[in-house]
Amino acid sequence: MLKRRYEFRAEFFDADPMGIMWHGNHVKYLEMARCRLFDELDFNYIKMKNNGFALPIVKIDIKYINPIHFNDDFIVEISLLDCDITLKFCYIILSKDGIKISKASTTQVAVTLDNQTLYSIPNELKTAILKAKSL
Amino acid sequence: MLKRRYEFRAEFFDADPMGIMWHGNHVKYLEMARCRLFDELDFNYIKMKNNGFALPIVKIDIKYINPIHFNDDFIVEISLLDCDITLKFCYIILSKDGIKISKASTTQVAVTLDNQTLYSIPNELKTAILKAKSL
Amino acid sequence: MLKRRYEFRAEFFDADPMGIMWHGNHVKYLEMARCRLFDELDFNYIKMKNNGFALPIVKIDIKYINPIHFNDDFIVEISLLDCDITLKFCYIILSKDGIKISKASTTQVAVTLDNQTLYSIPNELKTAILKAKSL
Amino acid sequence: MLKRRYEFRAEFFDADPMGIMWHGNHVKYLEMARCRLFDELDFNYIKMKNNGFALPIVKIDIKYINPIHFNDDFIVEISLLDCDITLKFCYIILSKDGIKISKASTTQVAVTLDNQTLYSIPNELKTAILKAKSL
Repeated sequence: MLKRRYEFRAEFFDADPMGIMWHGNHVKYLEMARCRLFDELDFNYIKMKNNGFALPIVKIDIKYINPIHFNDDFIVEISLLDCDITLKFCYIILSKDGIKISKASTTQVAVTLDNQTLYSIPNELKTAILKAKSL
Repeated sequence: MLKRRYEFRAEFFDADPMGIMWHGNHVKYLEMARCRLFDELDFNYIKMKNNGFALPIVKIDIKYINPIHFNDDFIVEISLLDCDITLKFCYIILSKDGIKISKASTTQVAVTLDNQTLYSIPNELKTAILKAKSL
Repeated sequence: MLKRRYEFRAEFFDADPMGIMWHGNHVKYLEMARCRLFDELDFNYIKMKNNGFALPIVKIDIKYINPIHFNDDFIVEISLLDCDITLKFCYIILSKDGIKISKASTTQVAVTLDNQTLYSIPNELKTAILKAKSL
Repeated sequence: MLKRRYEFRAEFFDADPMGIMWHGNHVKYLEMARCRLFDELDFNYIKMKNNGFALPIVKIDIKYINPIHFNDDFIVEISLLDCDITLKFCYIILSKDGIKISKASTTQVAVTLDNQTLYSIPNELKTAILKAKSL
């Protein structure tokens, strides 16, 4: 399974009046983990664009388990669940002590740059993922 | 059923390099609709705090159906699904022409201000909701 | 002088752990006031793009005078200071009671869409501004 | 002089429809550099709060020189200009190739936690800064 861990910090502007990260800001860190992973695959959004497609999110769900406080470091663990018709990742956000902060999943479809849906994830991306898995 | 519609606009800073609202920004407009509704109930987050509790989000899911472009006006329709052990809303984001942009739901639990979970939505809020429903 | 007032609300996700709008979020409301004004001129960013130019911000300064709290309504008053070589606006953010929250100014230059600086604000925009001033 | 450099990346949600970082998002990275520096001084916002004061921003100005594109790494160089009645920093944002992206300065005053202005930066913070300077 393709799985990576990236570390981030809860910034001042991420925290709400309760002193904890506003729930909507978790989405930013899921995107950051996904972009870091695409960079590792050497197949990021810029390369996708050059290959004539994009990968819009069609579904996201998040379960919030424990709060993250301002200035806390945390880990986003991203795992590939599926890469066939859709691209599906799941995520666990963990404190440095291993406490579960939240769990999430995202589903992306491939579209051409003029927004026509493709019925499968393009082969170039599948190949890049297979290569990373075999490392 | 308690249902309300609020109108917003996709701002320049909401749009991503594809020219459409970044998927994570939908969460802001769900929050804005919820806050407008709590204001209408005369029971907003400030009043909740004065009553000794908060309503953190424990679950969110969003399905993205069509893109919203920069400067487009849109409507968030929020409906109360449940107000017993948890507070659950569902949302439909619509273009001005009635095209479905996204669908979402959120679940909130009541906690005391020192973060102890309550096993039910406080009666003051239930009463405010019943009053609004009967209008 | 071209001057307009637009009303906004300090949202939950705008507020920081001190319960007041994070200073960086003022920039969003300056942008929103500017976009509302461009819409009134019938010359918004989309029309600019169709006319082959953009108006990037080259300078911003903000003085913070009083805090805005979560859920407070406030007014952004935007005034045109200059529209010749550069486009310059000044702004006053006011509470509903007329208390000054912050003062700001922005300077924009015109560039072609391939990022070549123009030495003057395009005539189409100047004309739209003159027309609005004469109303 | 107290000077530090921190590296960040322009995220997908930072970029606007022109594909470059929205000007308002520079403010986030100034805050991140300042927070990293306060952490190095072992005197971050949490310690300030425990010492009974906060450091709200009263003035910010930014000059934008060159655009940052999505996924570009960049450096924020922060330098202490003044720490007496006010706390003043200046910043240069640089690309990895040393190209100047923007220049900025911020001014902060010390206030007690009930928002009474102090007429000087508290000695605990001055001492922490002197200690860091001597390293």
